[in-house]
Amino acid sequence: MGNTTQIEQALERFKAAQEQMMAMNYATSILFWDASTGAPKSGADKRSTSIGTMSGFMYKLLVNETMDADLNLLTNHLDALSDVDRVRVVDTKKEYDKLTKIPMEAYQKYSALTSKASMIWEEAKENADFKLFEPYLEEIVSYLLKFAEYRGYQNHPYNLYIDDFEEGMTIDQLNTFFDTLRARIVPLLEKIQASGKQVATDFLGQAFPVDKQHTVSTDLLKTIGFDLNRGWFKESVHPFTMGLDVNDVRLTTHYYENDLKSALLSSAHEGGHAIYEQNFSEKVQGTPLATGTSNGFHESQSRIYENNFVLSRSFLSYFLLKLKADFPEQLGSIGDLAFYEGMNKVEPSLIRIEADELTYSLHIMIRYEIELGLFDGSIKVSDLPRVWNEKVKAYLGITPKHDGEGVLQDVHWSEGMFGYFPTYALGSAYAAQLMHYMKQDLDVDTCLKNGDFKPLTAWLNDKVHQYGSLVKPVDLMKQITGEAFNATYYCDYLEQKYSELYGLK
Amino acid sequence: MGNTTQIEQALERFKAAQEQMMAMNYATSILFWDASTGAPKSGADKRSTSIGTMSGFMYKLLVNETMDADLNLLTNHLDALSDVDRVRVVDTKKEYDKLTKIPMEAYQKYSALTSKASMIWEEAKENADFKLFEPYLEEIVSYLLKFAEYRGYQNHPYNLYIDDFEEGMTIDQLNTFFDTLRARIVPLLEKIQASGKQVATDFLGQAFPVDKQHTVSTDLLKTIGFDLNRGWFKESVHPFTMGLDVNDVRLTTHYYENDLKSALLSSAHEGGHAIYEQNFSEKVQGTPLATGTSNGFHESQSRIYENNFVLSRSFLSYFLLKLKADFPEQLGSIGDLAFYEGMNKVEPSLIRIEADELTYSLHIMIRYEIELGLFDGSIKVSDLPRVWNEKVKAYLGITPKHDGEGVLQDVHWSEGMFGYFPTYALGSAYAAQLMHYMKQDLDVDTCLKNGDFKPLTAWLNDKVHQYGSLVKPVDLMKQITGEAFNATYYCDYLEQKYSELYGLK
Repeated sequence: MGNTTQIEQALERFKAAQEQMMAMNYATSILFWDASTGAPKSGADKRSTSIGTMSGFMYKLLVNETMDADLNLLTNHLDALSDVDRVRVVDTKKEYDKLTKIPMEAYQKYSALTSKASMIWEEAKENADFKLFEPYLEEIVSYLLKFAEYRGYQNHPYNLYIDDFEEGMTIDQLNTFFDTLRARIVPLLEKIQASGKQVATDFLGQAFPVDKQHTVSTDLLKTIGFDLNRGWFKESVHPFTMGLDVNDVRLTTHYYENDLKSALLSSAHEGGHAIYEQNFSEKVQGTPLATGTSNGFHESQSRIYENNFVLSRSFLSYFLLKLKADFPEQLGSIGDLAFYEGMNKVEPSLIRIEADELTYSLHIMIRYEIELGLFDGSIKVSDLPRVWNEKVKAYLGITPKHDGEGVLQDVHWSEGMFGYFPTYALGSAYAAQLMHYMKQDLDVDTCLKNGDFKPLTAWLNDKVHQYGSLVKPVDLMKQITGEAFNATYYCDYLEQKYSELYGLK
Repeated sequence: MGNTTQIEQALERFKAAQEQMMAMNYATSILFWDASTGAPKSGADKRSTSIGTMSGFMYKLLVNETMDADLNLLTNHLDALSDVDRVRVVDTKKEYDKLTKIPMEAYQKYSALTSKASMIWEEAKENADFKLFEPYLEEIVSYLLKFAEYRGYQNHPYNLYIDDFEEGMTIDQLNTFFDTLRARIVPLLEKIQASGKQVATDFLGQAFPVDKQHTVSTDLLKTIGFDLNRGWFKESVHPFTMGLDVNDVRLTTHYYENDLKSALLSSAHEGGHAIYEQNFSEKVQGTPLATGTSNGFHESQSRIYENNFVLSRSFLSYFLLKLKADFPEQLGSIGDLAFYEGMNKVEPSLIRIEADELTYSLHIMIRYEIELGLFDGSIKVSDLPRVWNEKVKAYLGITPKHDGEGVLQDVHWSEGMFGYFPTYALGSAYAAQLMHYMKQDLDVDTCLKNGDFKPLTAWLNDKVHQYGSLVKPVDLMKQITGEAFNATYYCDYLEQKYSELYGLK
């Protein structure tokens, strides 16, 4: 037990070390930004060495005897700390345990394995040859099961990995979520496909000069509430957002000359992430809590701007007028409804990252069911190609021609990223729940019709953004909506939007 | 005294620490690049914190008891080391002594002083009020004199500061250099001005669209031998070059719509620096020796490409044809000779960074004489405005209207950068000496006429670039030319070029 001075000293040491880690983490992030936005590929080795060195320093700053003693002392005196300091200590202790409970040697072997596995996965995907990847994936799963024993878990080892990305989320809640989705969205998709309605999208595939796409994407970001004076908007191969500080939030999109929708939606999507990162309160700014509270909540912000706001009929009508000014030849003759329908067309695809709003979560459901099965032994790695194809057929009604566009399409598993996929679907579902309550406070539709995002973004600032990770996801949802996460809102939203769009009774 | 194993262990520890410093230095450089090429200004605080943290780690990696003992042991056994390791040790020991011989407290006070002085200088320059800056400059000079006592020096304290930027260079050699310049270039300038010859430059001030300037600048870089596949060429407010690795060399230029010459020359100038950085031999790659051997030699490479190559009549004739294709309206009717004369017009200016090739070194001479005078007490800080204006009048024949365009124009002194200015002039003079010997091996003029830089760059690769800082500047000049640095070549070159251009007898 410590006296006040001991606690104060421990807290000071802890914060000083953590601030040094943050400073190095900042540098590492800039190196990543640099690499993603044009740095010569030939400089990769030097960059890797630098990142490796900084990782080593960050590890030593976290894992050492002084930190161990300080974290233990502080964890035993959480009541003596401010709310921000308390969360900093609890989060760091969790991270510390994660790093130290697994024997170093096993962790190093596992790191070497995933590094190799990612390369093998790439080759396997290219050759559509799952057999190549199979032994690596088996070993990864077996390591993760072993690590779960070292780290300890509640009820099911997979709970541990869900919690790594979405604190407080469990299999029980996810089962309910995906059961609801399966029961309501799979039949909805079948009805849509049976409706026979044809939606034209060819006008979105005309030639849209990239520099003008950049102009309209920038305009879109401004409109939805991203502050370009405190950020940087560039192009990269894969769009992403990087919040370095509320005053330095960076995001990218990617332009395809013959695909206007892609750039607009990825700008809106990353814009949602970026608006979250720009609006942490002063209380958490400059601390490690200046970050999204979970992957699911971060995704809820990208999805709410992309799907619920930008892809709404009201906003698209407003924005089409602006687009017509920049693309008079391409869009001059397109009507509101045709534009809305084209931008929202439902079409099952084999590839997750090309999926539309409606079918996206079904892709995630497939991955969730498989991850769970691998962790409880009900699915064997060697059965994956068959299991995958069966589920794609059952939920999306289509069949991959080969494993490259099937079970091998995503990199995540080769990197040991299990428990991550569900947060993509949670994001959309959280967004729908937030929208439901936002509509009780605001006339959302009128705002969207007028392109007036101020009230919408202010509501999200107040309810979600300001807290950073001070309030954890489960508590935050309760605090905002007065209830736990509930998938009903999401299914209601999808049914209403797409029944109307496809003229289902 | 150590045995072989002790030496090997010390060397291993030394190199491991040095590699960690290099990794952090790499990250710090990328942060600087990021800040200079578009990062939001509002993110400056976070960047400063990160740079400060990494500087702290780098300091601790260098200054500690183990490093002290290892450096002493290794310095006593230099014969046991390879040539590369020997230079690494000697250079680091020098840096170590520089950092440790000055008492920490004095150094911190000095750092605070220069930080304040830079801000005051800015204000003083804006208000053209030297009196504001005077007490700060007095204190800086007095600190530097005190530090010279701590650090030790040969004959004259200013020798120490020259050596910091140009190893082995001394006042004796610089006096000879500037005496020669004074005796030959000041009269040459007077003759040029008396010649009455009018050179037109108005055609260079037409509107040249910035995107096309970027195209021709990129083309120029390719032509002179910069490998764009192992580099990155962007725009920034002040042009600069950053060699992170032979495979990642970055450079910038700045475009002014109404000044084609500026972008072309700064591209060629930075291109020269960048070609040096791209061509270190494998032997020094990845070590701290993968850097220019001195400021003067680095500048010799930027100057040789900018002045001796690109501004030559032969190359400009070749390049004008290309420029006409991109700027037919602006340059279509311009003849070879008019272009050459316009690009090389001599015109004394008050501002160093706007000076032409001929008068540039006279600006440096003024600064050298003043720095020397301040260090030996023959010039008082309070006399500087008067002394400055007298020298500008004597050498350039013009007089500043106020101190803002006179003694206050450069930031260097406020940052304590004494001994740096002479290397700018040395660069041009080294370049002329190198050119003299290059012409004994190659038909330089024919290469330039054909825009064929391969033999020229290969010669410089072989004679200069490959060594990095393995061979020190004084030795390198001897090794290449068989003689010591000799200012005659530079004066001969300037006299010949400008006598011809201005039709002097």
